[in-house]
Amino acid sequence: ERDKYENNNVAGVVTGLAWTRVGGDILFIESILSKGKGNLTVTGNLGKVMKESATIAMEFIKANADDLGINSEVFDKYNVHIHVPEGATPKDGPSAGVTMLTSLVSLFTQRKVKKSLAMTGEITLRGKVLPVGGIKEKILAAKRARIKEILLCEENRRDIEEIKPEYLKGLTFHYVTEMSDVIKLALTNQKVKNAKKL
Amino acid sequence: ERDKYENNNVAGVVTGLAWTRVGGDILFIESILSKGKGNLTVTGNLGKVMKESATIAMEFIKANADDLGINSEVFDKYNVHIHVPEGATPKDGPSAGVTMLTSLVSLFTQRKVKKSLAMTGEITLRGKVLPVGGIKEKILAAKRARIKEILLCEENRRDIEEIKPEYLKGLTFHYVTEMSDVIKLALTNQKVKNAKKL
Amino acid sequence: ERDKYENNNVAGVVTGLAWTRVGGDILFIESILSKGKGNLTVTGNLGKVMKESATIAMEFIKANADDLGINSEVFDKYNVHIHVPEGATPKDGPSAGVTMLTSLVSLFTQRKVKKSLAMTGEITLRGKVLPVGGIKEKILAAKRARIKEILLCEENRRDIEEIKPEYLKGLTFHYVTEMSDVIKLALTNQKVKNAKKL
Amino acid sequence: ERDKYENNNVAGVVTGLAWTRVGGDILFIESILSKGKGNLTVTGNLGKVMKESATIAMEFIKANADDLGINSEVFDKYNVHIHVPEGATPKDGPSAGVTMLTSLVSLFTQRKVKKSLAMTGEITLRGKVLPVGGIKEKILAAKRARIKEILLCEENRRDIEEIKPEYLKGLTFHYVTEMSDVIKLALTNQKVKNAKKL
Amino acid sequence: ERDKYENNNVAGVVTGLAWTRVGGDILFIESILSKGKGNLTVTGNLGKVMKESATIAMEFIKANADDLGINSEVFDKYNVHIHVPEGATPKDGPSAGVTMLTSLVSLFTQRKVKKSLAMTGEITLRGKVLPVGGIKEKILAAKRARIKEILLCEENRRDIEEIKPEYLKGLTFHYVTEMSDVIKLALTNQKVKNAKKL
Amino acid sequence: ERDKYENNNVAGVVTGLAWTRVGGDILFIESILSKGKGNLTVTGNLGKVMKESATIAMEFIKANADDLGINSEVFDKYNVHIHVPEGATPKDGPSAGVTMLTSLVSLFTQRKVKKSLAMTGEITLRGKVLPVGGIKEKILAAKRARIKEILLCEENRRDIEEIKPEYLKGLTFHYVTEMSDVIKLALTNQKVKNAKKL
Ligand SMILES: [Ca+2]
Ligand SMILES: [Ca+2]
Ligand SMILES: [Ca+2]
Ligand SMILES: [Ca+2]
Ligand SMILES: [Ca+2]
Ligand SMILES: [Ca+2]
Ligand SMILES: [Ca+2]
Ligand SMILES: [Ca+2]
Ligand SMILES: [Ca+2]
Ligand SMILES: [Ca+2]
Ligand SMILES: [Ca+2]
Ligand SMILES: [Ca+2]
Repeated sequence: ERDKYENNNVAGVVTGLAWTRVGGDILFIESILSKGKGNLTVTGNLGKVMKESATIAMEFIKANADDLGINSEVFDKYNVHIHVPEGATPKDGPSAGVTMLTSLVSLFTQRKVKKSLAMTGEITLRGKVLPVGGIKEKILAAKRARIKEILLCEENRRDIEEIKPEYLKGLTFHYVTEMSDVIKLALTNQKVKNAKKL
Repeated sequence: ERDKYENNNVAGVVTGLAWTRVGGDILFIESILSKGKGNLTVTGNLGKVMKESATIAMEFIKANADDLGINSEVFDKYNVHIHVPEGATPKDGPSAGVTMLTSLVSLFTQRKVKKSLAMTGEITLRGKVLPVGGIKEKILAAKRARIKEILLCEENRRDIEEIKPEYLKGLTFHYVTEMSDVIKLALTNQKVKNAKKL
Repeated sequence: ERDKYENNNVAGVVTGLAWTRVGGDILFIESILSKGKGNLTVTGNLGKVMKESATIAMEFIKANADDLGINSEVFDKYNVHIHVPEGATPKDGPSAGVTMLTSLVSLFTQRKVKKSLAMTGEITLRGKVLPVGGIKEKILAAKRARIKEILLCEENRRDIEEIKPEYLKGLTFHYVTEMSDVIKLALTNQKVKNAKKL
Repeated sequence: ERDKYENNNVAGVVTGLAWTRVGGDILFIESILSKGKGNLTVTGNLGKVMKESATIAMEFIKANADDLGINSEVFDKYNVHIHVPEGATPKDGPSAGVTMLTSLVSLFTQRKVKKSLAMTGEITLRGKVLPVGGIKEKILAAKRARIKEILLCEENRRDIEEIKPEYLKGLTFHYVTEMSDVIKLALTNQKVKNAKKL
Repeated sequence: ERDKYENNNVAGVVTGLAWTRVGGDILFIESILSKGKGNLTVTGNLGKVMKESATIAMEFIKANADDLGINSEVFDKYNVHIHVPEGATPKDGPSAGVTMLTSLVSLFTQRKVKKSLAMTGEITLRGKVLPVGGIKEKILAAKRARIKEILLCEENRRDIEEIKPEYLKGLTFHYVTEMSDVIKLALTNQKVKNAKKL
Repeated sequence: ERDKYENNNVAGVVTGLAWTRVGGDILFIESILSKGKGNLTVTGNLGKVMKESATIAMEFIKANADDLGINSEVFDKYNVHIHVPEGATPKDGPSAGVTMLTSLVSLFTQRKVKKSLAMTGEITLRGKVLPVGGIKEKILAAKRARIKEILLCEENRRDIEEIKPEYLKGLTFHYVTEMSDVIKLALTNQKVKNAKKL
């Protein structure tokens, strides 16, 4: 069953584009903080590579906390839990990297995510965004889910250019090469309602 | 062998609807506290996804303790054990999520669970309730077990509407989209007898 | 090879009824304490579900220490080891639950186990006793082993009623639904000789 | 290749009888102490059940230290390593239990092991010795290895009685039911040369 | 899809030559530091042998910190994360050893990596560089990726000599036998821009 | 590809004889120390039995530190890493035991290893050297690698006697039964250049 875009009211919830055994779909990355000692927990029936994406995102944030406007002390005082509904569907691959990283930056800064936006892309430890597969199926799923803007790796531009223009109506594409561009495009400067003080 | 609804005298015991290798059945989620350092143990011959539901429920409660009326200090002073009888039957899938979360809130608040109620639904980290499968078989099992009220995800309403009305006689349905609705509907404001002081 | 009932001189040794690859048999649950920090070790070539029974028994006791007449401080000062001879035979399933729980209560209270008694039944975290399978084979094994009294779940009564009465000669049956009944029936108020002071 | 009995000069080295993929053979259980915090390490290409025997032996000793003449404080100050040569041969089963327990008691008391003795038998946590299989092949291997005395479970007496007497010439058998008998028969009251002060 | 050489602006990013299921390719080794207690994390869908290379590189650096101009105190104050994009491609084998070690020395010294350089070779714990396979495919991939200089084990010289000279145009080869030669050749004496003070 | 004997300049590097999937070969055992808390790390694509040899060697040294002239305090202050190049070749079996033990004694005493020597043999926890297989193939590999002296278990003498004398020209054999003989024969009394002060 295919999901619909929801809202952007909560920190740490970001919409990704996935390619699972049921074809293209959107998925939500959810992350929360609880008081703790800096542990990272990942759930959602994820494979090894997708779990690694969560580790990479977390370590990237720790190593670049200053640039991201995050106080490093927070990392030792809270546990982070990243979850990807829906548990019945196994999920794997590196393409949720940008979504996970955006989710964590939203969580640690309590900044609101841009409305009606979805994204897909692998991240690297130095902050590059890499191209991923299944673009056509993901775009069709995004339309069905009422997504308006899509964030992709620059190297995936050619995959979009191969799709019939009529399928792309109503969609705006943002092509990026660096994770810093993702953050600028995906996070607003507005805090979420009832933002946590970290 | 199919189970019967029992009572609602004990904190932390909530009735779920399951779909196992023997078909639809009700199951009980039991949880208890013992003095400790905040460890979570899960038993009952559970698969990976069902164990993840327990983690999600626990983390959701930690992150939303204030809203749920739970004093956060309790989490470091007790170990939590969640068990799902019957050990001979392997169990998996995300559909016990709402039941586990309700069980834990009952446990930490010592509030009584509503009588003759059963539930099924996946939970997400931000408190959404997601639809699950096997609804028809679960409903028939609920009737056989003398359940009176059933709590489901709003998106499962159509699955109920496809069942012949005569099978639904004597059952009341509650459709929810948020975990906060589940708690309101499932937990009474009455403490259990001999409630623990936490 | 089939075992014979032995004696009830030692705390923590309780006779169970098992259904292994060699058919019905009795088995012994042995448990001991050694100075330590509260670790639980389980041996005896046991499968996952049978190991879970040990965890459930231990957690039940911790959560109900007062009712069972056990001083909670003991749990942090000793390690518990539960062993099920005979190592060459793989064993699994939930039916040793009541036996393990009885063994641990005998161990922590140093109370003597009732003579010539054997038992089989699953336990739940809230102290219910659940029915188990293989009853006929277990009863025949119990007779061969010179057991006199057998403790079973109330729901297993019908399994006994289906056995030819001549096979049941000399056996007394106790049907229970709660773990508290098991303890009352299985443990005497007499301490074992050279009882440990805990 | 079959082994020969060696000497009894070193604490912690005891001769067992084994039944491996090359047939009956003798094996040596070696154990040593090094300063540490009470860890137990087991090597020798052992399967799960044989590793459990080492755990059972160690826990039995901890729980019965006084009776065995061992000062309990030693358990926290040393690590114990049990090794079973020869690494190329996988070994499993419970029959090295008595040998491992004898090895550890010799190690902790620095008492010399009786000369030209070999043994085989399962141990239980309450100190019983249980019968084991492959007796005929083990006895023939013991003779080839110049063993003079053999220690067995009382219940294995019938297995010996089925062997042609001419094969048993020169062998003395000791049948036991309790681990305390094994210790009395297998360990001399003499300390090994250069005994460690523990 | 084949990668292109990027730049050498960041500490800890070094270009390797790999032989994966898609043939010869270049790969990037990325490493970063975050405040911590000396843990090493490795990601990138790596097999056992490639993970071992990371351990060997890290331990070599710890044992030779003085010679490498690294203050040993840094090892306890930071966590190190090594990542090898691209997560969708499983990678294994020892040939990234020299690249990982160079990446870590660049990271701990904040020295810039030589421009347009790629390397392949196994490392040993005493600092030798060993030959690796797939040289021809790796060289062709390096040319396509606009690499100018290649660093190889002396014992791989014969593999280069077997390649048609026209394929080698524009490439300079450096043959080494010791890890110290790799460091001299691969790292400049210039610090990276915004070098961390460790 | 077959290796050549290298030199004996570095502490902790000892030449072994191996029998891998490519036939007989020499291999190097390398070990290093880094400041730490007494952890042992083992790499080199090793199977379970070969990893156990490293544990046995380390524990033997800890238990016999005085006799080996090693100050026990060093064990808590350093981590030990044992590596066996070449990562692409899986290695297993107990025959590297003597080589690993010699490597560690060289490392902890900083004594030079005898020139042009190779060895093969299983070790036991009480310091015995046991015979191993594949002797003929190992000897031929040793000659090709320009080894001059070979250290073997006394029980492998017959394997050497079955090899045509012309293949043995230029090789000297040392047969041993105890690990103490190996140390005497394999380690010189000379410290390595730039010996570490431990
Ligand atoms: Ca979906
Ligand atoms: Ca949905
Ligand atoms: Ca049922
Ligand atoms: Ca039932
Ligand atoms: Ca039996
Ligand atoms: Ca028996
Ligand atoms: Ca043998
Ligand atoms: Ca031998
Ligand atoms: Ca690539
Ligand atoms: Ca690329
Ligand atoms: Ca080689
Ligand atoms: Ca080589």
